[in-house]
Amino acid sequence: MNETTITAKPDTPFIEVVREFDAPRERVFSAWTDPQLLPQWLGPREVTMKLLTYDARTGGSYRYIHADERGEYGFRGVFHNVVPHELIIQTFEYDGAPDQVSLDITSFEDLGGGRTRMHGRTVFSTVENRDAMLAGGMEHGLRDSMARLDEVLAR
Amino acid sequence: MNETTITAKPDTPFIEVVREFDAPRERVFSAWTDPQLLPQWLGPREVTMKLLTYDARTGGSYRYIHADERGEYGFRGVFHNVVPHELIIQTFEYDGAPDQVSLDITSFEDLGGGRTRMHGRTVFSTVENRDAMLAGGMEHGLRDSMARLDEVLAR
Repeated sequence: MNETTITAKPDTPFIEVVREFDAPRERVFSAWTDPQLLPQWLGPREVTMKLLTYDARTGGSYRYIHADERGEYGFRGVFHNVVPHELIIQTFEYDGAPDQVSLDITSFEDLGGGRTRMHGRTVFSTVENRDAMLAGGMEHGLRDSMARLDEVLAR
Repeated sequence: MNETTITAKPDTPFIEVVREFDAPRERVFSAWTDPQLLPQWLGPREVTMKLLTYDARTGGSYRYIHADERGEYGFRGVFHNVVPHELIIQTFEYDGAPDQVSLDITSFEDLGGGRTRMHGRTVFSTVENRDAMLAGGMEHGLRDSMARLDEVLAR
């Protein structure tokens, strides 16, 4: 199984994620941007995802709800930049932490041989917001998401 | 004259700006979001500003060009959140540094007596990008902008 590497250096507002996939870059990018595919993998396994808006183009917006037995969790943002197969730069905000916006920079590297390396960088507006997101179970959601994405790509 | 306080702590990707204005919050917010007013103050005095797109609403986009005798400098971004009179959260990218996107959080505080305090926080995707922006004359542009904005508000 491919490993998910998560780096969050102390006293910085950054989280870096590196993950390889056994699929060509076009298919990985598609899973990230196609509103039919995204709800099949984004988030921890115990939640159901309802995608309300997902216009993954430069200048587009998105909004989705994660639901579990305890309640609903809304998320929204805008796409600053979407370069097909290569790069996605978007904002991110959780309804439960209003105005604590972060920036997600996701790039896709073609490793050849039908393999792809994803590099993600999240920049929070303060170190405290980054630490709160880590404490809130971000890592669990992220590792689940990456494993679920493997399953989507294997279909 | 009102002072512009710029704080950029070493080894962080943040720049903080605090500035007071002798004008009510509604007028300061207007100067920030009205496409007729923005080109009258944003940028150093030696440049001319051409506003190509400016849709200062949640989910909107913007693009403008600063021109001086040496050439043209393009900037663009999207608005993550615009709360009238209170808050603007937007992305920012300079054409000359592609994909080095930053996040600008600008809030307006009503001080009473027709005065307003603006608090700006810019979050860069790396410490290096922040340092490059400071080295590139950001402070000069910012101080000029704030003085020009005083003049717009005094009209």
